[in-house]
This record gives sequence, C-alpha cells and structure tokens, in this order.
Amino acid sequence: MRIKYRNSIEELNRAVFSSDGNKAIGPFNTDTTLIYKTLKTNVGSAYNKHTGMFTAPVAGIYYFSFFYHAGGAHPVTVSLIKNNELIVMAHDHSTSHDGADNGGNAVLLQLQQRDQVYLRLGANTNVWGNNVVTTFSGFLLRQLIEGCNFNLN
Amino acid sequence: MRIKYRNSIEELNRAVFSSDGNKAIGPFNTDTTLIYKTLKTNVGSAYNKHTGMFTAPVAGIYYFSFFYHAGGAHPVTVSLIKNNELIVMAHDHSTSHDGADNGGNAVLLQLQQRDQVYLRLGANTNVWGNNVVTTFSGFLLRQLIEGCNFNLN
Amino acid sequence: MRIKYRNSIEELNRAVFSSDGNKAIGPFNTDTTLIYKTLKTNVGSAYNKHTGMFTAPVAGIYYFSFFYHAGGAHPVTVSLIKNNELIVMAHDHSTSHDGADNGGNAVLLQLQQRDQVYLRLGANTNVWGNNVVTTFSGFLLRQLIEGCNFNLN
Repeated sequence: MRIKYRNSIEELNRAVFSSDGNKAIGPFNTDTTLIYKTLKTNVGSAYNKHTGMFTAPVAGIYYFSFFYHAGGAHPVTVSLIKNNELIVMAHDHSTSHDGADNGGNAVLLQLQQRDQVYLRLGANTNVWGNNVVTTFSGFLLRQLIEGCNFNLN
Repeated sequence: MRIKYRNSIEELNRAVFSSDGNKAIGPFNTDTTLIYKTLKTNVGSAYNKHTGMFTAPVAGIYYFSFFYHAGGAHPVTVSLIKNNELIVMAHDHSTSHDGADNGGNAVLLQLQQRDQVYLRLGANTNVWGNNVVTTFSGFLLRQLIEGCNFNLN
Repeated sequence: MRIKYRNSIEELNRAVFSSDGNKAIGPFNTDTTLIYKTLKTNVGSAYNKHTGMFTAPVAGIYYFSFFYHAGGAHPVTVSLIKNNELIVMAHDHSTSHDGADNGGNAVLLQLQQRDQVYLRLGANTNVWGNNVVTTFSGFLLRQLIEGCNFNLN
C-alpha cells in the first residue's frame, strides 16, 4: 500500500504519546518521578516507560495534560517538570472526611529538541495509580523551524 | 467563494466534536451511556447525540477529554470506552461532608475507522448534568494512512 | 536559515497561547475576569495579559482547557465565556471539612475572527492563584476558510 503524507507520519512516529500508571504510588519521603508503564498510545517511543521521561523529538509547541485520583488520607502534589523547571502543578490537602480527591492540569509548552518533560510526585504525597485513573498525555501540536523568531511574552 | 485547503476541511467536517449534557443523570442500577444533547461544536456529526457514540470517520490519533460535576451523596464513576474496552476513568467516593465533587480525564487514542468511543456512567453513581459543567470533547489530531507500521509499545 | 512551512508558522505566531495566574484571587462581590499575568507560551500575543482576553486571530476550531485549585472555605465558579455567552463552567461548594478543591473543564469552540474568550470568576467565589496551579490554555486546532458550509448541529 502506498504511503501518503510521509512527512506528517514520520513526525507522528516520534511525538505522539499517552500513558497511565498501574500501581498505587507513594507516599515516599522524597520527590519521585512518576513512571507510567501501560501506554495507550506511544507512537515512536517519545515516552520512555522505564525512566518516565518524555523527550521532545523535535522543537515545537506541545500540549500536555495529566489527571490523578488519590485517597484522601495523604496530601497530593503532582508537578509537571520541563528539564528542571516546575511548569504546572496540581495538589490537594489530606482530609479525614473526604474519601478521595481528583485533580489535574494542562499546559502548552514550547520545547526544544531533546527537552525532557515528566511528572513528579511530591515527597510525602500519594496518588492512586492504576492503568485507567491516573494518566499523562501529550502531543506535538506544531513543529517549529529553527531560525524563526517568535514573540514570547 | 473559493474553497482552499479542501482536504483538511473535509477531514474537519467529519471529525471535530464537543458536547455536554443538560440534565441530572443517575444513579441508575446498571451502567448507562452518557448522551450529550447539547453540542457546542460537532462539525460533520461524528458524535451522535441520540446514541452518545462518537464514531471515528477516519483512522487516526484522537484526543478526548471529559469533565464532570457531581453531588457528593453518591459515588461517581465515568469511564471512557473504546468499543467494549475501558480506556480511562474518573471516579469518586460518596461523602456526607463534601457537597460536591469534580473530576475528569483525558487520553490520546489511536482509532481505526468506525471505532466507537463513548462515556459510560457506572451503576449506582451519578453526575450533575447540565449544559455547561459535565462535558465531553474530542478531536482528530492526526490522520493515519493505511499500510504504515507504527511502533506501539 | 531558511524558513520552511511559512504558512503554518504564521498561524502559530498568532494563535497558540497558554497562561496561568500568580496571586490569590477573590472572593469579590461581583463577577470578575481572571487575568493571567505569567504566560508559559503565548506566541503572537493572542492572549492579552492586561485584559485577560484571548482574541481569535483567525476563524477556526479552538480547544480550550482550564484548571483551578481553591481553598474550601468559599465556593468556586469559573466560567469560560465566548464574547458574552457562557460556554462551560466548573464550580464547587464551600465546605468546612475538605481543605481544598480542584476542578476544571475543556471545550472545542468554533470561533470567528476577533471572537473573544476569557475566564470569569463568579461573584463571592475564589480560586487559589499562583503561577502553577490555576491555569488556562488554548490553541487553534484547525483554521476554517470563509465560504465553506459546516453542518453544525
């Protein structure tokens, strides 16, 4: 069968991913990278299910979203990190009265090739990990071409 | 007027949708498909507001997200289903102390043409349906061309 | 360096944005526009960080998402408004037992050029604004070409 639109397919091979966890996670006494073992869609392996890192295959604008479910007995802090920079976060307090908490966040991010994006579970917090409720998704929205100026403000 | 970019417009005609409900829903004593009657954007009728089914018009990578609001007196389970397979879910416990619960989830999904995606409300759970708070959105991110191999892992 | 794909880059210049707040917000005794001062990504300045308005640079299908964190002592109502029309909303009750609330929503919207989209905090409600937890993102998914008919239902 003929392959049409080859360029956009190669881009796809490298950049679309979606992932979710499959076990209870935390609390730990230190910040911990969330690693999603069960991948719904990870064309091209941009997401590494051994390290939990999404590595940008090309420079571009990416959209990331994450959602968690967590028991209420511990607080929750889930941070989306770009390299070593905190980008967005979702957190909740512990409570003895509310059995569970849900949260999430999303962001558009301009990434350079090889930038790394991952989720970090805060020290002494927990999420309920299984392969459907605590999830992490991301995709390349538009590729950027080197040498162009963008007005970032 | 001339139609430019005809291919991408035809794709749009068939695949972009967004929807939301407009009535209180559940609890029922069995799993129930959520049907969103009020559509903000449903170009090409990929979403059927009589059956609640989104039918993929073409093979591709799709992004889906949903959000709910629900009274705290009953638990909540909202599952995103592809054909008969559970993909992602959001749920919450009942509570006598917290008046209401919010939740949601999102996923990237590789669909074949005619795959069906819908939301299922779990037995004995409820969501607060009105035309702005409990919502379901989805769009085609990239079309896939038959005959190509993708590394899905 | 050569600029490839010039059309899609110009589109990018005008339409991709992501934003988040950086201070505690509300409660006020009237509805108030949320203004996000810290922008993660706002290529082309479609989002005005002085007015809080996203102005559509071209007619098209846009995807918007927002997330908030809020203390439980006050209710929360965050509405996504298109011009003067309520599109989607997230809200929560006040509670003396649950320390904090998280919520959000998302929608696909067909916009005409110069349509304005923004978030409105409801009277007597509050969100916890800082530059990572309460966020607003949006992007142009597909540009529409004038003179085409779409089946909106």
